[in-house]
Amino acid sequence: MSLGAVKHLQRATRAGGRETRSRLLDGAAELFLTRGFAGVAMTEIAAAADAFPSQISYYFKTKEALFVEAACRELLHLGARAEDAAGLAVDEASYGDALVETVAPSPVLALMIEAMALARRRGDLTEMIARTFQRLYEEGTRAFAAERVRRGWAARGDAAATSQRFWDLAFGISLRVGATGGDAALAVSEMKKAMRVDASREAR
Amino acid sequence: MSLGAVKHLQRATRAGGRETRSRLLDGAAELFLTRGFAGVAMTEIAAAADAFPSQISYYFKTKEALFVEAACRELLHLGARAEDAAGLAVDEASYGDALVETVAPSPVLALMIEAMALARRRGDLTEMIARTFQRLYEEGTRAFAAERVRRGWAARGDAAATSQRFWDLAFGISLRVGATGGDAALAVSEMKKAMRVDASREAR
Repeated sequence: MSLGAVKHLQRATRAGGRETRSRLLDGAAELFLTRGFAGVAMTEIAAAADAFPSQISYYFKTKEALFVEAACRELLHLGARAEDAAGLAVDEASYGDALVETVAPSPVLALMIEAMALARRRGDLTEMIARTFQRLYEEGTRAFAAERVRRGWAARGDAAATSQRFWDLAFGISLRVGATGGDAALAVSEMKKAMRVDASREAR
Repeated sequence: MSLGAVKHLQRATRAGGRETRSRLLDGAAELFLTRGFAGVAMTEIAAAADAFPSQISYYFKTKEALFVEAACRELLHLGARAEDAAGLAVDEASYGDALVETVAPSPVLALMIEAMALARRRGDLTEMIARTFQRLYEEGTRAFAAERVRRGWAARGDAAATSQRFWDLAFGISLRVGATGGDAALAVSEMKKAMRVDASREAR
């Protein structure tokens, strides 16, 4: 085989690998979202992704690592959907409302809470969680800054700290509302109430 | 036996029951705090409390119910300790700092996070979590209001909503910091940073 042909084959294999990996993450996320970590077998995930169980071990090593990576990817997608929804807002208050209305009722929060609880006891998974939050804050901050400039809204204090606090609150509220039998609508109204504590202080 | 003697015996039995129950909760909390739900056997808890395993079933029905009640009780104690520490503060800012320094590094947060994750999937345990948060906010609000009046600090907006948000943030931050390999000192500084977002907005 010529060197060119070898390189072509390597590229094709890598691309195929990426596609299988991505399909496994999609299938895993869908199953984990409805049944949680313990409720899904590796063989089901492989079947959903048209792959072999051995490919899961090859790409992710453990079920825990697959779970955490699938949850992290869903969280970043949720962040992007929230920014898209907020981009249609007419003013700063409705920008915040749009973020809340997309994030607070999402089942991705419960998925990520389970992933964080798992990672707590597993040193090898903390790195991925840390990188995911880093990216989530960066993308949220960048999206808001672009919108702010485009709309001529006044600059705020520390946008990265505000983004971080938004997500910490969303997870804290999701955890509590889920544990007290509340539904997605309650999570939204609780999150809006928490955001209004700031607004009322600003208005003083 | 006279009616008086029967009543005396009933009272003594009830008091003994309350004491056994309380001892079981203390023993359970201590063990669960270090090893989590799955790491502790019912027989160990009984031994730690000088009781029989059958008494756990009698007083709490399930290990899950014992775990959730022990975590809820620890959370209320943590709230009380935080108010005691904050009561020594010289001004409003250091009142908030004292709350954060007591709550954010406490292992009780991780215990309660596990209890909330458990209750999420168990309808029979949500009631106890809901009542615990209700009491936590009420006691926090009452303690702050008393301090405010005593010191002549200005009235704030919705004190109950502020207390609720404080705890939602504490849990969200504990969850994230634990999952990204951070320690108790990081939890404290992250919580202070989140509280400063308000302060900087107020200062504008």
